[in-house]
Amino acid sequence: MTRKIIPFVSGGSRTDTAVWLEALQAAMPYFSIVEINALDEPARRAAQVAIVADPAPSDLETLPNLKWVQSLWAGVEKIVADLPVSEMKIVRLEDPQMAKTMAEAVLAWTLYLHRDMPYYRRQQARGMWEPRPMCAAPDRTIGLLGLGKLGRAAAGKLRDQGFTVCGWSRSQATIEGVATYSGVEGMKSVLSNSDIIVILVPLTHETRDLLDEKAISTMKKGASLINFSRGAIIDDAALLSALDRGHLDHAVLDVFREEPLPRSSPYWSHPSVTVLPHISAPTTRATASKIAADNIARFFETGVIPKAIDRSRGY
Amino acid sequence: MTRKIIPFVSGGSRTDTAVWLEALQAAMPYFSIVEINALDEPARRAAQVAIVADPAPSDLETLPNLKWVQSLWAGVEKIVADLPVSEMKIVRLEDPQMAKTMAEAVLAWTLYLHRDMPYYRRQQARGMWEPRPMCAAPDRTIGLLGLGKLGRAAAGKLRDQGFTVCGWSRSQATIEGVATYSGVEGMKSVLSNSDIIVILVPLTHETRDLLDEKAISTMKKGASLINFSRGAIIDDAALLSALDRGHLDHAVLDVFREEPLPRSSPYWSHPSVTVLPHISAPTTRATASKIAADNIARFFETGVIPKAIDRSRGY
Repeated sequence: MTRKIIPFVSGGSRTDTAVWLEALQAAMPYFSIVEINALDEPARRAAQVAIVADPAPSDLETLPNLKWVQSLWAGVEKIVADLPVSEMKIVRLEDPQMAKTMAEAVLAWTLYLHRDMPYYRRQQARGMWEPRPMCAAPDRTIGLLGLGKLGRAAAGKLRDQGFTVCGWSRSQATIEGVATYSGVEGMKSVLSNSDIIVILVPLTHETRDLLDEKAISTMKKGASLINFSRGAIIDDAALLSALDRGHLDHAVLDVFREEPLPRSSPYWSHPSVTVLPHISAPTTRATASKIAADNIARFFETGVIPKAIDRSRGY
Repeated sequence: MTRKIIPFVSGGSRTDTAVWLEALQAAMPYFSIVEINALDEPARRAAQVAIVADPAPSDLETLPNLKWVQSLWAGVEKIVADLPVSEMKIVRLEDPQMAKTMAEAVLAWTLYLHRDMPYYRRQQARGMWEPRPMCAAPDRTIGLLGLGKLGRAAAGKLRDQGFTVCGWSRSQATIEGVATYSGVEGMKSVLSNSDIIVILVPLTHETRDLLDEKAISTMKKGASLINFSRGAIIDDAALLSALDRGHLDHAVLDVFREEPLPRSSPYWSHPSVTVLPHISAPTTRATASKIAADNIARFFETGVIPKAIDRSRGY
């Protein structure tokens, strides 16, 4: 009996695709993982499921009998926007390891701001020895926008570290020791009470430009911002203006409307901006491949498609 | 009945002394806290206990009947070195809040190194978008030198964060989930196995120049160093040489042989050094004053002097 062929549809570089193919094949030796361009017509027609990483819609259209796709990313807003609405289900990567890595990143860059690292870096560059008064963690309020798997993991970590934590989500959430809000008024409460705002909401038509001029002006004077979600959540001009006039103190940006961030972006050289190259929670190839393998094997054994995204909500 | 007079002997600036006097007086309204220069001869002779913060030995000598001094600092190596050996006991500040703040600092700057913040800062300055492969916390070994109250608190925090943690102390310690070592061979194990070494040992005649050329060469190639103890633990020339030839990756230095760090120090402009102005765990005036108040009140009620340092060990 020949092994079932699972198409892999990647928008990444050739090297990236090769490394993924190797990791995926290692995780499911009982299937044959084949890059889509290497598939013949019968194999394309036979495919019920494909593994995708930033796929081109034109590639997916050559797989007419696809029931679902397993994405290797947690963020699927591009697939949702690009693909015509169809019966095909989209399964995002829900990797517990990713929530851990993201929570670690949220803690790391929260401590970066909490312990004044950008300030001390500037002081070092000037040869200045000037300790700042220390603020205790309970006196620092961290506001999380987005309380899904990633947001909840981050909230718990910050709370356990002694910070005062609040959070906002589309539908009301409950997290022990965390003040949770939803709705328009709830958003205002979180924005106006937090010393550091951490963005973790998925990008949807509702969250695009969520941090616009008005929302940013609602933020506490001297507050800081961390964006680990998607660049399009923030109105860049409004953020730069708030930093320039001192309404906001610092921004840690890991995601941008265009990535890699163009050389012409004012963010690169802005003294109040920390630019990161989308590294907060990289997909771990080994754990992601294992999750894809388990989902696909279960599908062929039982016919069950894992929980797919709600395309009307966008995540 | 008049309130007992407790002398305060400070080597700090006038402002610093005034701020301390206010905090101390607020914490023990039943005593009268008086700056030593304002005391007359009978008051000096009457004093059994004094509160000290970096005191000049000549000042302490004018208090002939002192049984003990309460230091407001955790590090007392200067008092021990400066004062003639006598019956007078030295009580260091053991503030649980300080252990918490120090553990937070250890976690913050460990994450700073773990998540490659110095690297990404250099990349930003060059306008470069180059993600580094991510290392998971369990794959990173953190080695603590010193497992007293501060070291133990830091070890627990790092362990809970998922790091692999080992530690060295003068006498063998036991901490759940942490590989502990003592002795010369134990020191070698910790130095050679750790990706990040955190220095928390007190400065004594045994730990002066502990991180000399030989010890640094024992460290893993590409490892980093955090010093939150005292500057004299490290041989500066040996550290700079190790950084320059790439044997060590980065050093986070909060303490120096001379503070403020002189403008002429090569540390200021070294690309692999983060200079901090002694801010890892500042004494919190309110909690420190409360601890001093409790110790002194107990002494006058019961005659019990709190656990003093062992002057032969130096801490």
